[in-house]
Amino acid sequence: MKQVEVGIIMGSSSDAPIMSQAIEVLKKFDIGFEFNVVSAHRTPQKMFEYASTAEQRGLKIIIAGAGGAAHLPGMVAAITTLPVIGVPIKSSNSLDGWDSLLSIVQMPADIPVATVGVNGARNAGLLAVQILGTSNSALREKVAELKKENNEKVIKQNETLDQYK
Amino acid sequence: MKQVEVGIIMGSSSDAPIMSQAIEVLKKFDIGFEFNVVSAHRTPQKMFEYASTAEQRGLKIIIAGAGGAAHLPGMVAAITTLPVIGVPIKSSNSLDGWDSLLSIVQMPADIPVATVGVNGARNAGLLAVQILGTSNSALREKVAELKKENNEKVIKQNETLDQYK
Amino acid sequence: MKQVEVGIIMGSSSDAPIMSQAIEVLKKFDIGFEFNVVSAHRTPQKMFEYASTAEQRGLKIIIAGAGGAAHLPGMVAAITTLPVIGVPIKSSNSLDGWDSLLSIVQMPADIPVATVGVNGARNAGLLAVQILGTSNSALREKVAELKKENNEKVIKQNETLDQYK
Amino acid sequence: MKQVEVGIIMGSSSDAPIMSQAIEVLKKFDIGFEFNVVSAHRTPQKMFEYASTAEQRGLKIIIAGAGGAAHLPGMVAAITTLPVIGVPIKSSNSLDGWDSLLSIVQMPADIPVATVGVNGARNAGLLAVQILGTSNSALREKVAELKKENNEKVIKQNETLDQYK
Amino acid sequence: MKQVEVGIIMGSSSDAPIMSQAIEVLKKFDIGFEFNVVSAHRTPQKMFEYASTAEQRGLKIIIAGAGGAAHLPGMVAAITTLPVIGVPIKSSNSLDGWDSLLSIVQMPADIPVATVGVNGARNAGLLAVQILGTSNSALREKVAELKKENNEKVIKQNETLDQYK
Amino acid sequence: MKQVEVGIIMGSSSDAPIMSQAIEVLKKFDIGFEFNVVSAHRTPQKMFEYASTAEQRGLKIIIAGAGGAAHLPGMVAAITTLPVIGVPIKSSNSLDGWDSLLSIVQMPADIPVATVGVNGARNAGLLAVQILGTSNSALREKVAELKKENNEKVIKQNETLDQYK
Amino acid sequence: MKQVEVGIIMGSSSDAPIMSQAIEVLKKFDIGFEFNVVSAHRTPQKMFEYASTAEQRGLKIIIAGAGGAAHLPGMVAAITTLPVIGVPIKSSNSLDGWDSLLSIVQMPADIPVATVGVNGARNAGLLAVQILGTSNSALREKVAELKKENNEKVIKQNETLDQYK
Amino acid sequence: MKQVEVGIIMGSSSDAPIMSQAIEVLKKFDIGFEFNVVSAHRTPQKMFEYASTAEQRGLKIIIAGAGGAAHLPGMVAAITTLPVIGVPIKSSNSLDGWDSLLSIVQMPADIPVATVGVNGARNAGLLAVQILGTSNSALREKVAELKKENNEKVIKQNETLDQYK
Repeated sequence: MKQVEVGIIMGSSSDAPIMSQAIEVLKKFDIGFEFNVVSAHRTPQKMFEYASTAEQRGLKIIIAGAGGAAHLPGMVAAITTLPVIGVPIKSSNSLDGWDSLLSIVQMPADIPVATVGVNGARNAGLLAVQILGTSNSALREKVAELKKENNEKVIKQNETLDQYK
Repeated sequence: MKQVEVGIIMGSSSDAPIMSQAIEVLKKFDIGFEFNVVSAHRTPQKMFEYASTAEQRGLKIIIAGAGGAAHLPGMVAAITTLPVIGVPIKSSNSLDGWDSLLSIVQMPADIPVATVGVNGARNAGLLAVQILGTSNSALREKVAELKKENNEKVIKQNETLDQYK
Repeated sequence: MKQVEVGIIMGSSSDAPIMSQAIEVLKKFDIGFEFNVVSAHRTPQKMFEYASTAEQRGLKIIIAGAGGAAHLPGMVAAITTLPVIGVPIKSSNSLDGWDSLLSIVQMPADIPVATVGVNGARNAGLLAVQILGTSNSALREKVAELKKENNEKVIKQNETLDQYK
Repeated sequence: MKQVEVGIIMGSSSDAPIMSQAIEVLKKFDIGFEFNVVSAHRTPQKMFEYASTAEQRGLKIIIAGAGGAAHLPGMVAAITTLPVIGVPIKSSNSLDGWDSLLSIVQMPADIPVATVGVNGARNAGLLAVQILGTSNSALREKVAELKKENNEKVIKQNETLDQYK
Repeated sequence: MKQVEVGIIMGSSSDAPIMSQAIEVLKKFDIGFEFNVVSAHRTPQKMFEYASTAEQRGLKIIIAGAGGAAHLPGMVAAITTLPVIGVPIKSSNSLDGWDSLLSIVQMPADIPVATVGVNGARNAGLLAVQILGTSNSALREKVAELKKENNEKVIKQNETLDQYK
Repeated sequence: MKQVEVGIIMGSSSDAPIMSQAIEVLKKFDIGFEFNVVSAHRTPQKMFEYASTAEQRGLKIIIAGAGGAAHLPGMVAAITTLPVIGVPIKSSNSLDGWDSLLSIVQMPADIPVATVGVNGARNAGLLAVQILGTSNSALREKVAELKKENNEKVIKQNETLDQYK
Repeated sequence: MKQVEVGIIMGSSSDAPIMSQAIEVLKKFDIGFEFNVVSAHRTPQKMFEYASTAEQRGLKIIIAGAGGAAHLPGMVAAITTLPVIGVPIKSSNSLDGWDSLLSIVQMPADIPVATVGVNGARNAGLLAVQILGTSNSALREKVAELKKENNEKVIKQNETLDQYK
Repeated sequence: MKQVEVGIIMGSSSDAPIMSQAIEVLKKFDIGFEFNVVSAHRTPQKMFEYASTAEQRGLKIIIAGAGGAAHLPGMVAAITTLPVIGVPIKSSNSLDGWDSLLSIVQMPADIPVATVGVNGARNAGLLAVQILGTSNSALREKVAELKKENNEKVIKQNETLDQYK
């Protein structure tokens, strides 16, 4: 059985369609993950336990998504020594994502959250891969391959432009 | 000795000059208070204990100030059943207070934070008084007196305008 | 007959679908309320009377919702000694709720409005319950129960995540 | 004695240095004015009386300045039938004037406030002159002269540019 | 035939559905108006002529609506001595109306534009009526009647709230 | 005598310290220029003449700077067929430059303004050089040299970093 | 065969519906163009080659569109000596275009990007024509004709307004 | 000699006072680093080489700071497979840091930049340590110690509050 290295959490199951985009990337890179709803506001005790036991349970990275006054990524970062990646969610109760972004990225000294773009769960997944890649050259090679694939895809997109010429 | 009814907390002692403006109001209304640095990010365990014991220690209201990605008011509100008043601080590491405001006021369902204006600690103090006044008519009368005083002060300000006429 | 303790007002009946979310909470907690359209701009005299008689009519808290240049919560707070909870409405004539939020929360010294998030009427209702709870331990216990229920709901949400694994 | 046609009000005497710029214009055009501190939040009753008696006292226009959650112009406009000119003040407790601007300009249907730029009291004075000019061709001529003077001043500014060439 | 006192202009016929809301008000108050497309950017010469002849053609007020980098109200105000009311339009090419609002309201000294809220053409119409009312007490009475009607409408809205109680 | 190819204009001589940074670049590239105060709002007729005669006077490009509700670049672009470069000025009466930027860049279809960053007069000058370079390979070579110089300067900056190591 | 003078590039083929609006203008003015997907982030090497060979391949102007953290226009401008026109795209992953606009227009000294409005590809096309027109009086005449056509179209729009009168 | 694991780069030596705060953290944790000025806009070729050789030179993480239209972090991330940490700088030519933040964090799919708060270089340093800690339990322990120190410092701050009581 694969070692779970990345914990993905979010404040509500309504964030799952966005946050699961991180899973697609982790699967592609064959990284073990777990996926849970953990709310800083509704399950603060569980959040506390999740964050404080993450390292000893073998996790290496936590990806946390939240919207509005988004406290989950920052609170988890306050508790764990692991790097935390924050995904600002543009949820229905957010001000177009501005509140989510600012309440995740503007962390005080010594409690960084590695913030990606609004709804950027896919990038959170890839960032986790790159972080694991700092001690795993095979992963770095696979990231290089992904870059090559994307490069080729973009070049192929040019074939669709004839209609405009 | 006076019963401590209002707990005032903030993320850093650098917020004290602002947050102490709440104290001035509480003293004027003769309300017992306590004043502490409790950081959601640097002392998460203490924050947890503070919030989860506040009610049994006799507190009735918590005033929490924080700046930047300001999680203290919302996290305390997640844990306690007491009403929490949030003061967005325009700290040096904040985006002119916009981040502080949004990360305090935009709380999800069932975890309200009673938010006042940016740097509005004085108003936080008075709001606490008004909340205590819901079961204390003498306090309500004193609030009415403050309104009268302010009314008179504004009317007296007119005497300073002759220079412009 | 139940004592009416919370007055809910709004600037227009078009705000009722949002503002009635406060009612759901008050009903759940068995708090007496009244629900009215009172406009600072269209019925200023009625607003004045409403605010200045609220205390003697036995109200303990006023919840006021408004959108755009939202003056209702602040004006009511200027007149009454009761705590006023402001709900910024993202109405069709508002700039995505930014105007509603700023014109409610940024009140001057000595006239606080306890502001909740944009469209946060449900939270306004719960904040009213918490305020009443400062002198009513039974209410505080019921708030604690709500927190437990929400905690359990979040934990149950995890069962829906299998599709993503 | 000159008929007072323009009432200039503001929420606090601290706004006087800005608001008095409207006076300079009115004096230049020899328009009678009055200048008062009237606060929607601290003297709501006085504000109410001021606005509801303005027309019968012979005022034709009201200029109202306020900062932060700026309710004075809109509330006066709610009560009087006279045109109200609103001046958003960038006061120390405002979010760089954004709150002042939005809470003055974004008025609901049927309660317009003629809003000028942030700290634009001088323009409020001139707008009052132009409004009075709709029934006074001599005033319109004097506005035309001001435009000519400004035109000439700008053309003269060119003489200062030689240092850059 | 009725004297045309208010000129309503806009940068494009696509703004007509919004701007025509000003017409409804003027008709209700029996004010003569004209309605034209005049673009500062596409018909600068016509705009120049329109603004510079407005006064001699008997106009007393100009209402100008525009979106995006909205220059029409300010340019007309630069040329005419008449009061100009600006309506920021939330057009498809605007940044949610922020650009329209700022490029209309933030005018330099001595060139005021009386700005109403985003898409606030109805209010522009009523402001024009109020301006004409400064020399016409019958109009002021009719504005007072409108206020009464609106007052009553709001009070009647309360009858629709029973469903929520 | 050198042919004047670039006209630099601004709404007020107070913008000269910023706008003159364009001159430094033009001098470095030995491009003839003229430098004038032309205000869309205070000298609309002069602005009209300036823009409508620019081409026949031999100008090839116009650089226009303005702050607040900045109409000068867009109005000039409306009148001339020449490319217009707009410089948003962060003037004292602007909202930190946001109004200046939006009222310059958000132009409607068929009236482009080539907008540079806030206070970016130096870049406006270089953009003018690049535009002239489209028909002048010597200029393009000189731009390439500037790029090389800047490249070297940046590399030299590394020598100053030893203090941090 | 027509000389290709304008290179139009964009970060993704999903931007083609917007960016192709530049093509319409270039075709109307009979300017040779090329249209390609070149991504600063996915094909950095190709972007580098594109920008560094553009001048020698005979291009005179590059139009680059991008959304979100939009680096393509600025990076191309860093490499080429040609003028670069930037089009901020309001893509699905952008914050309503604010990120696109700021990350294109706010370039540092000596690397200008001639920025047009959000989604303003049509204007980018016309700006390119105007730039080519600085050395081509026939093009300038055709721009003048376009202005005349637009002038007439606006005047004709007036015929559609009868329904509102 | 210590292995260099973290490369710190910035667009200009004027960013060094901010960016060197990352160095303090790395020194405290005894991590080898290098510190260079590398500009995406002024030294694009060097930036390209730096990013494309970083992995083979043994770097594991790149920290990149930039202000305004901040392209350095995103461009480096486009080229390297290493994780890139972006620091938005509030430089003099930025719009209070909003442009810096948005142009760093809002990256497209598959090119993440781990963004920290505005001027958050210290946090960038600590995030780098945490990332290295994913394969180094001794580092994780040292991070835990830092958290303990900070916890104690905050608790000691309480001793300074007596003056307010």
